[in-house]
Amino acid sequence: MNEDQITEWFARQSKLSPQDFPIGIGDDMAQIQLAEGISVLITTDMLLDGVHFNLEKATLEQVGYKAMAVSLSDCAAMATVPVAAVVSVALPKSFGEKQLKRLHAGITLAAGKFACPLIGGDITAWPNQEPFALSVAMLSRPTGIGPITRSGAKSGDAICVTGSLGGAISGRHLEFQPRVREAIKIAQIACVNAMIDISDGLSTDLNRICNASHVGAVVDADSIPISDQASKSEDPLASALNDGEDFELLFTLPQDQCKRLLQNWTGPVPITQIGIVTDTKKPQIKMPNGQVIDLQPKGYDHLCKGKPPNKLV
Amino acid sequence: MNEDQITEWFARQSKLSPQDFPIGIGDDMAQIQLAEGISVLITTDMLLDGVHFNLEKATLEQVGYKAMAVSLSDCAAMATVPVAAVVSVALPKSFGEKQLKRLHAGITLAAGKFACPLIGGDITAWPNQEPFALSVAMLSRPTGIGPITRSGAKSGDAICVTGSLGGAISGRHLEFQPRVREAIKIAQIACVNAMIDISDGLSTDLNRICNASHVGAVVDADSIPISDQASKSEDPLASALNDGEDFELLFTLPQDQCKRLLQNWTGPVPITQIGIVTDTKKPQIKMPNGQVIDLQPKGYDHLCKGKPPNKLV
Repeated sequence: MNEDQITEWFARQSKLSPQDFPIGIGDDMAQIQLAEGISVLITTDMLLDGVHFNLEKATLEQVGYKAMAVSLSDCAAMATVPVAAVVSVALPKSFGEKQLKRLHAGITLAAGKFACPLIGGDITAWPNQEPFALSVAMLSRPTGIGPITRSGAKSGDAICVTGSLGGAISGRHLEFQPRVREAIKIAQIACVNAMIDISDGLSTDLNRICNASHVGAVVDADSIPISDQASKSEDPLASALNDGEDFELLFTLPQDQCKRLLQNWTGPVPITQIGIVTDTKKPQIKMPNGQVIDLQPKGYDHLCKGKPPNKLV
Repeated sequence: MNEDQITEWFARQSKLSPQDFPIGIGDDMAQIQLAEGISVLITTDMLLDGVHFNLEKATLEQVGYKAMAVSLSDCAAMATVPVAAVVSVALPKSFGEKQLKRLHAGITLAAGKFACPLIGGDITAWPNQEPFALSVAMLSRPTGIGPITRSGAKSGDAICVTGSLGGAISGRHLEFQPRVREAIKIAQIACVNAMIDISDGLSTDLNRICNASHVGAVVDADSIPISDQASKSEDPLASALNDGEDFELLFTLPQDQCKRLLQNWTGPVPITQIGIVTDTKKPQIKMPNGQVIDLQPKGYDHLCKGKPPNKLV
């Protein structure tokens, strides 16, 4: 089982009441209904030294910022408003006050940008020099429009992305801007059927939308916005499809809504249509030579041992 | 700075709006006000192999159970009702589906006992055999009575504990019963001024109540309920005061309310009065020889490097 398969297994076991939990395991956030018309959403993300960052290259301020930004990106993925966060840390033995204050500076930078304060946490330390890990849990609330899930994509929808993709490894992954405001603005302009943030690569995250929505897709390789960093790589298209950590929005919406969105969108973050949703039940990609092939999920998977960790270090 | 000092520093930086966040950094849970009369509370706890459990002795089922129970105990500490949890994991490279399912069995055991379902999570893996860590974030809701904080203790209050203390290291720490139902029942019978769960030892957690409430205390050593395990140790009193991981409730309430509680309490978990709150601003203990000495916080502190990790391994 890979990450998504075990997550689906957990989801099947969970048997949540849809009244109390309108969105459960398997989306970017889970939703808890607290009273008529009042709900809150929650996400959690664990970040590890040597996987999601490398303390030989990144500062603790950057790590604190990134940890918050990853969860803020989940809030964006559902077009919800961040509310507050808690952070738990597992410190190497040598870490103390100085390191915690640096981390805190990065956390509060992100918190301040998105009015999502740090309201609690837990400090633990390894007995020795085991590596640094931290986990964020973040709450958000729906706007009037309601959370946008992965499972609403419909055949015929346009598929769009914000920004440009690939090459985040070279540095962008530490200082990206979670698309919180963009997501809410998109949802205000147009009726969006499905949305996700691209954390593990377009190929993997489009597969997630297709699986959750029981649809297929055809992406036009030539229309994928490739980042400057990815353009300089050996295989820019593969980089844009599979690198991950772009934290851009990937979403689908009816063609007329897409037209409306693109006409009314004033940026500055670009929105690009990259394909259409189909009823084939599998995502495909039309390559620059015209050939249409299956789009395999080739993004990072924590449980696939056959693949060496290629994320950051 | 020790754990509590850095936490106080974080709390001072946080400048939370008391309307939106009636309880912020520094209590067992933080409280988020979502609408008039509707609030939710959140706690997070990180557990590490080699510190909070030892996978050479504990099963993954026990670890999953404990991770949930620790956060459930935070819900109890404020007399709130658990609602749902998310769990993030950092897996050693060798862990896969089998280990995750065992962990899940322990999580769902605790979740089922307290109607607090797992609704989301995050799976990450170390590139090599770095040790297992997991972090739980849990939501709860207030009962009609409202969350009980650490900061409401008043001079003259009786100090009580549930259960018996000390020696949890020998095994109880893996299978304790979080006092969720007891806490709510206590708060229904009597007006409780302050409460905390004993996670780091009576000495440390009573200091926390005294610091937060700006009061002192005198505990009568002879009245502390000492567990069977602690009774067998070299220094049963020190064990009961400092071992930690008891996850019993420590609370203060006016003397007449204490009388009322003890008269109406039907168990099965015992409640014992162990002392009184004073206006001396420091917790003290009356030793069996009659001498009154300061009660130093000698429980486990993750940031005090001078003290070897003595928790479990």
